[in-house]
Amino acid sequence: MNEKTSNRRSDCPLSCWLEIFGDKWTLLIIRDIFAFNKINYKDFLGSNEGISTNILADRLKKLVEAGIVTREVDANNKLLINYNLSKKGRDMEPIFREIAKWAKIYIPDTKPIEQFEDA
Amino acid sequence: MNEKTSNRRSDCPLSCWLEIFGDKWTLLIIRDIFAFNKINYKDFLGSNEGISTNILADRLKKLVEAGIVTREVDANNKLLINYNLSKKGRDMEPIFREIAKWAKIYIPDTKPIEQFEDA
Repeated sequence: MNEKTSNRRSDCPLSCWLEIFGDKWTLLIIRDIFAFNKINYKDFLGSNEGISTNILADRLKKLVEAGIVTREVDANNKLLINYNLSKKGRDMEPIFREIAKWAKIYIPDTKPIEQFEDA
Repeated sequence: MNEKTSNRRSDCPLSCWLEIFGDKWTLLIIRDIFAFNKINYKDFLGSNEGISTNILADRLKKLVEAGIVTREVDANNKLLINYNLSKKGRDMEPIFREIAKWAKIYIPDTKPIEQFEDA
């Protein structure tokens, strides 16, 4: 057991996954980047669910630390930070697709996310 | 907008899914039933992650209300309640499989859940 694994709840892959993504907001940030091409604070804060600034800051920090989201100073405006997905983040796509499929059947009256729909 | 949809954060299927599953414990209960054939409080409380009684009670109540988990008095012991997955719950399997695949690549040193591994 090393530093990285010693504070895990267990060695279950699902439990470890939930330690990153088990909250009501983290996956929405990835959705925003992936499906809606959002890249900065102002974009994320504008989403319908109304994430708060402090939750957004906390979750982005954790996603960057986990290597799922990348953080870069904007080339034209050094005060602006742009976020994007790493390969690790983009590889979440199949999970989103399966959630979208399940929701399509079991959660009525939702608006499909085109990016995660089957072709 | 009816009673069921009016307190949603948005009409995004992912956001609605997170309103049910967006925490660190709910998916673990479904894992316990699905992959480890656990059926009652004592079983769930014995899992490695150490869920507390009050969180377990709260999440089971919500899962039963959402029609994802069924609740039945034990045939041989009327003091015992058994929980199981409805079809709606079992249909979460592809989501678990994709999470397992991602975790296998990106979260080191976890112990695969046989039930969610590819054959």
